[in-house]
Amino acid sequence: MVFPYRIVVAPSGFKESLSAADAAEAIAAGLRRAAPGAEIDLVPLVDGGEGTARALASAAGGRLVPVDASGPTGEPLRAELALLGGTAVVEMASVAGLSLVPPGLRDPGLTTTRGVGELLRGALDLGARRVLVGCGDSGTSDGGAGALQALGARLLDAGGRELPPGGAALRQLARVDPTGLDPRLAGTELVVACNPFNVLCGPRGVARVFGPQKGAGPERVEELSSALERWASVLARDVAPAGLDLRTGAGTGASGGLGAGLAALGARLRPRFEVLLDHVGLDARLAAADLVVTAEGALDRESSRGKVPGEVARRAKAFGVPVLVLAGTIGEGAREAARVGVDAWSGILPAPVGLPEALARGGEFLADAAERALRMVLLGGRLAERAVRS
Amino acid sequence: MVFPYRIVVAPSGFKESLSAADAAEAIAAGLRRAAPGAEIDLVPLVDGGEGTARALASAAGGRLVPVDASGPTGEPLRAELALLGGTAVVEMASVAGLSLVPPGLRDPGLTTTRGVGELLRGALDLGARRVLVGCGDSGTSDGGAGALQALGARLLDAGGRELPPGGAALRQLARVDPTGLDPRLAGTELVVACNPFNVLCGPRGVARVFGPQKGAGPERVEELSSALERWASVLARDVAPAGLDLRTGAGTGASGGLGAGLAALGARLRPRFEVLLDHVGLDARLAAADLVVTAEGALDRESSRGKVPGEVARRAKAFGVPVLVLAGTIGEGAREAARVGVDAWSGILPAPVGLPEALARGGEFLADAAERALRMVLLGGRLAERAVRS
Repeated sequence: MVFPYRIVVAPSGFKESLSAADAAEAIAAGLRRAAPGAEIDLVPLVDGGEGTARALASAAGGRLVPVDASGPTGEPLRAELALLGGTAVVEMASVAGLSLVPPGLRDPGLTTTRGVGELLRGALDLGARRVLVGCGDSGTSDGGAGALQALGARLLDAGGRELPPGGAALRQLARVDPTGLDPRLAGTELVVACNPFNVLCGPRGVARVFGPQKGAGPERVEELSSALERWASVLARDVAPAGLDLRTGAGTGASGGLGAGLAALGARLRPRFEVLLDHVGLDARLAAADLVVTAEGALDRESSRGKVPGEVARRAKAFGVPVLVLAGTIGEGAREAARVGVDAWSGILPAPVGLPEALARGGEFLADAAERALRMVLLGGRLAERAVRS
Repeated sequence: MVFPYRIVVAPSGFKESLSAADAAEAIAAGLRRAAPGAEIDLVPLVDGGEGTARALASAAGGRLVPVDASGPTGEPLRAELALLGGTAVVEMASVAGLSLVPPGLRDPGLTTTRGVGELLRGALDLGARRVLVGCGDSGTSDGGAGALQALGARLLDAGGRELPPGGAALRQLARVDPTGLDPRLAGTELVVACNPFNVLCGPRGVARVFGPQKGAGPERVEELSSALERWASVLARDVAPAGLDLRTGAGTGASGGLGAGLAALGARLRPRFEVLLDHVGLDARLAAADLVVTAEGALDRESSRGKVPGEVARRAKAFGVPVLVLAGTIGEGAREAARVGVDAWSGILPAPVGLPEALARGGEFLADAAERALRMVLLGGRLAERAVRS
């Protein structure tokens, strides 16, 4: 076997535990313990969620601009926009992310994307001609209602009263008055980088698929499902360009339905990796690799539907490069990953531990797991060499 | 790479979760999912602990004889002796094992090896000329005091009163009166199959190393340590052949010090794998393998000191066969296993789970982990093939 291997380390972040950059460093440290001579190329991947603005500003030589905005529970906070030439990057998770919602307040029926609208206004104030909205890691399910309100739309109940924040209130929505919307939106290109597999309504709608992990019990999930149905139909009638499928169009469910809300304003919803990965030159780096190690918090049925491991596997296959996935949780349906090109996968937990410990010790666990995984790969290599020689 | 691989699957049992036979079956099922063509040789390994008597009776064509005896908390139970020709196999765990002690009663200061002495008497009644005592999985720390009492020795305090059961009482031991010991012991060969790394006293004595997992808190551990010091010195003075090191001799700490107690009666303490593994023809089967997969509940510092993975690795290395270990817990010091010949290792847990779930779903987790591990080995094989071809 020829050493050093060239190994591309291209992980996602581990939600509430590790940024993508930290995950990449941890994996590399473990790989080096098993194969000190390996040539390791770190490609932490942004997926639109937490850390996206900062990572793109760094990768593309842009700058970060602080903006005061509202958090998901309405509290004021200071977030950052990335400015890359005339393009502003708005990271929805920076003002409406799940990690900004204290565990005791996690109710996606109440949290709001108001801050996203405020960041968009900030981008317009800075003269951006194009705004890229990164989705992912959201703690909201308001369909982007809060963002629209912050941009000047009025959401009214049957009595003509403005709705309070949160997705649950949308059950009372009678009409949307778009006349107050910021007029500068019309001259601005809005692109939403999203997971196209996320849709607003229906059996795989956001309330059902992501509501529970944002803190919704079964009853809240059903309330949100019907609230978002109403949101889709009223938006389509009162705001959106004709012909848009806000219910089940690709990406309408992105970030608790923010995709649908922004689409109604004329934004284009685009597969996030097409929009984001060109910034890091992933394909060229994959083409030069012998092995790719990617990672994500959970490897499950969702992983092959527009998540980092699935996307990395799909691209690596184009160059015939084997793909190994490390994951904090190997969930139901992980084996489906094999069908999109994942060759092998491993959990990272060394012992029975609870979730808090798993999150707190993520870097250590990931490094050790990377070492163990590469040791197995090397073992296989020696077996094959022996077979070839004999 | 030449398929089918010949894979020897030689696991230990997983304490309180899987027998060695069940573990072997689970691993094989997972391996077959990754490599349907692999040739798999199941060699579940007995280590002297739970399941040893039954496994040896089955492997060597012997028979099982029921014997009434006392359990570790004094409750009556029915255990089994294995009879292999003139050799009786006494499995200490069958009458004094940790799994026989209800969690609420786990106090190694109180539990007793009385049942072991009763099984030994049973073996003598059956005319055994040689008795093999399997150690491991014990729930006791009485130094074998209960066994000696059951065989007729009297353990007396300073007032000449017989001591109650359990290791803690040995702090009051003034002398042992051996005159009532069963006279048939003199004409019987006693062999204890034990982990030679376990010693009775000192900083790595049984009370400190194993007391906590048997239910002793820090204070109880210190009480037991001094009780076993006293036991060693009184036994040496009143019972044991001259010159024996009952404190730190190899194997004296086996099964909560049962090794020391039986050594005082003239038993030979022998490394368990030398005594036990010849029955399963392990070496010949390793010699024919391409890869060995072994497994244990925990891979840690102890694993390389006379436990199944360490022993399998040591033997496999003699034939140049790579060794992969699957473990429920990857503990401190696991990397030391690499030094005794373990090439790669992996945890089996797919997600953050508590110990009860890990134990209950051991078979499923082990099978899935075996599949994942072999997929990584195969990935390494493909990489090596590609490197050789290019």
